[in-house]
Amino acid sequence: MGDKAVGFVGLGIMGRPMARNLMRAGYSLTVYDVVGSAVEELVTDGAQSAGSAREVAERTPVVITMVPDSADSEAAILGEGGALEGASPGSAVLDMSSIAPATSQKIGAACDAAQVEFLDAPVSGGEPKAIDGTLAIMVGGKREAFERHKEIFDILGSSIVLCGGYGAGNTTKLANQIVVAANIEAVAEALVLAKKAGLDPNTVYQAIRGGLAGSTVMDAKAPMIIEGDFKPGFRVRLHQKDLHNALLTGKDLGVPLPVTSLVQQMLGALINDGKGDADHSAIANFIEDMAGVTVSGE
Amino acid sequence: MGDKAVGFVGLGIMGRPMARNLMRAGYSLTVYDVVGSAVEELVTDGAQSAGSAREVAERTPVVITMVPDSADSEAAILGEGGALEGASPGSAVLDMSSIAPATSQKIGAACDAAQVEFLDAPVSGGEPKAIDGTLAIMVGGKREAFERHKEIFDILGSSIVLCGGYGAGNTTKLANQIVVAANIEAVAEALVLAKKAGLDPNTVYQAIRGGLAGSTVMDAKAPMIIEGDFKPGFRVRLHQKDLHNALLTGKDLGVPLPVTSLVQQMLGALINDGKGDADHSAIANFIEDMAGVTVSGE
Repeated sequence: MGDKAVGFVGLGIMGRPMARNLMRAGYSLTVYDVVGSAVEELVTDGAQSAGSAREVAERTPVVITMVPDSADSEAAILGEGGALEGASPGSAVLDMSSIAPATSQKIGAACDAAQVEFLDAPVSGGEPKAIDGTLAIMVGGKREAFERHKEIFDILGSSIVLCGGYGAGNTTKLANQIVVAANIEAVAEALVLAKKAGLDPNTVYQAIRGGLAGSTVMDAKAPMIIEGDFKPGFRVRLHQKDLHNALLTGKDLGVPLPVTSLVQQMLGALINDGKGDADHSAIANFIEDMAGVTVSGE
Repeated sequence: MGDKAVGFVGLGIMGRPMARNLMRAGYSLTVYDVVGSAVEELVTDGAQSAGSAREVAERTPVVITMVPDSADSEAAILGEGGALEGASPGSAVLDMSSIAPATSQKIGAACDAAQVEFLDAPVSGGEPKAIDGTLAIMVGGKREAFERHKEIFDILGSSIVLCGGYGAGNTTKLANQIVVAANIEAVAEALVLAKKAGLDPNTVYQAIRGGLAGSTVMDAKAPMIIEGDFKPGFRVRLHQKDLHNALLTGKDLGVPLPVTSLVQQMLGALINDGKGDADHSAIANFIEDMAGVTVSGE
């Protein structure tokens, strides 16, 4: 197997299209996932299957991991049967999962000790941009490793920024998720207030979108809230996980995050209410329920 | 005095340039302010002075009011010596102050009873856009009155939207201010977290501004927070007043506004800390103080 061999661990909604884009770009892929059907799908597309993350690392010089949360990254890389058990000195692990920065730092230190390169490289943009290969990729780690593996990121994304050392990619991702969540919540408060005051929410949206209140979130989510269409998109469950990691990071660093914590609690309430798989714009449902009105209603 | 005579009550930071733009457009102006020096300045520019809002209304068919808050609007229009005492049936009062929608509704009802047209028409954009005549103007009231007086708004602003009946202009303004304040606060939490994690805040800003987190607020205020430059701009004191009016309106309508109330409390704390006249991006100071770090620091 040549230099263009890559391993991919974690073939979920994001991992599958990312792995396919690498194959399309000429990489020979060895894949692993705990879900056998996800592996079979990629094997049909031409990938080789392996029985564990360790086996993937034994067979490829670069292993990409794309798993749900901190514990999963730790298991896939540092755990029994994990990538580090199979990785040779000089090989690399690129963790593209969105996890707590402290976990990325722990994994980075373990990789250093094993002379394995490591980058944390979480992404933003969701499934559509994973399919299009236009993700935003926020990277933490050493500059030499970043330069060496940038050609892989260039296949998967259109904005690739080295943000600092181990964990900096995930810290930047958390900064992103804090702003997005708070902005959705504020748009929801504004539209619910306007609705209950008897105004047409779409008129209010049109009147304020061109001014200082305007944002990518407002243009993406206000129409969904106005229509009452909460099809994902990015799920409540995942945004709650990201804000949980933001709060853990804030606690570690001594940074109180009052609005983040409030919105994180709202997302938790929505999950309890059976809305964990709705789009994160369903934060509006929390405000609507409190106010006894729906923005999309008559 | 012909049809192009207009009265202007309230010659503060916003009112002065607005009044000047009307004179420049050929309107003959009669002005009043409790501060004599502000009146003299406009008289030097060619305006006539009057001794009270009532006298302004006696002498002009259209009176614009631009005062700080609900009680000031009520005094200038409904109070003793106020515009309604001097206004003839068929004349008009255009209140361009940012106040509580319930007060606009009360003033509108009183104007209806006196057969005086009324519009609430608060603005967004601050002093620079007042000077340029490019304010965003959010209007509440009757469509006929809106059509009749739109030529005045067209001189003062570049985006003029009729949002509904009496109070709808101010409700829309509150929706705007809710989103702006929460977004500043979230950008502050994100940048403080990144700073204390040891990242370069400007790199984080550049990495996330092009994605879903991007906004007009982020591009206007993140650079100020990163530089530690809180020169106004729009003042903490005024944004606190607007959010106070949002909370009053929420209470009247039965709309809980959890993030708005939290940020309003932060603005109150900043005022107690002597920062009432700083730019509203100084919300970042609240988070910085809690975290014991400054985003602009070494």
